Amino acid sequence: MGRARSEERRAEILRAAFEVIAERGYRGATLSAVAERVGLTQQGLLHYFPAKEALLIAVLEERDQWDTGGARIGGRRGWRLELLEALVEYNAMRPGVVQTFSALLGESVTEDHPAREFFTHRYALVRDDMAGVLREEFGDRLPGGLTPERAAPLLTAVMDGLQYQWLLDPESVDMPAVFRDFVGLLRTGEPDREG
Amino acid sequence: MGRARSEERRAEILRAAFEVIAERGYRGATLSAVAERVGLTQQGLLHYFPAKEALLIAVLEERDQWDTGGARIGGRRGWRLELLEALVEYNAMRPGVVQTFSALLGESVTEDHPAREFFTHRYALVRDDMAGVLREEFGDRLPGGLTPERAAPLLTAVMDGLQYQWLLDPESVDMPAVFRDFVGLLRTGEPDREG
Repeated sequence: MGRARSEERRAEILRAAFEVIAERGYRGATLSAVAERVGLTQQGLLHYFPAKEALLIAVLEERDQWDTGGARIGGRRGWRLELLEALVEYNAMRPGVVQTFSALLGESVTEDHPAREFFTHRYALVRDDMAGVLREEFGDRLPGGLTPERAAPLLTAVMDGLQYQWLLDPESVDMPAVFRDFVGLLRTGEPDREG
Repeated sequence: MGRARSEERRAEILRAAFEVIAERGYRGATLSAVAERVGLTQQGLLHYFPAKEALLIAVLEERDQWDTGGARIGGRRGWRLELLEALVEYNAMRPGVVQTFSALLGESVTEDHPAREFFTHRYALVRDDMAGVLREEFGDRLPGGLTPERAAPLLTAVMDGLQYQWLLDPESVDMPAVFRDFVGLLRTGEPDREG
């Protein structure tokens, strides 16, 4: 099989996995369900992804690209807090992938888990991105006095922590609203803004 | 076996499980390791806790009691933000139990997980407690304008979200310092405090 054909097949598998995750959540996203959707045997699928974790990690990497890719056109950081708010709104409409992310993140903190390296690396990048977002919005000092680098892990923690509360009890936790409250808190002390 | 003897045995198992968790983390805390420590067969242990999840949930419930019990003497909410800061400091010294909590929380958001009900119920209580802490500290309106009830899920999310980043990369994430930054942010806009 040629390289182009192989990469096309890989992309097709990722799309299928994303669909299965959206429809059936973390537990339902089995290798056999994904294989069936792309017309492969489970053995055939294992040629591309050696285990369920590897497939899920690839899907989450792909999602990170989709979610942040458009905002970085030309290498410029174009992200703003408003875009983050929109991303949280969007996540609230796709519980399957948020559940998969959150479940895999939970597993990854245990010893020798195959997703540990992915998440450790991802969070280093995410904190860096978040510091960039905050610097673009506020400059070198946030209204409350924090630097962008010190506020970055906080912003990240809020997004992740809210997902767990929301997944467990979506009726009680309005994830996008609570996230907007946090953004408002970051702006506390700033001179009044329009709108 | 009498009820008193049985409850004593149960408490002994919980203490042993807590020790095993502290020493070996989530994956190492197997039913057989706990059984061995209290001199029971695995079958004997199953009489008290029907599965690993049930045992871990009981340990986490017990931890919540220890952590918050002392602060509620006489039914009064005696918690303050300073105590929460101290709790986060303390958690940074016990990665085994934080890892166990975080891994089980991750699992609990998947379909039909045995820990789902525990965590859903726990978070309702925790948000309520946090709203109480915030009200005692700030009254009905926080410096940034939020009510205690609206800030409570945020405070909770920060604690949980930071644990994941810290467990994955303790060298890069100073969990207690970032949590103190969040408390500082809640106080932004407040008239200057002493100290």
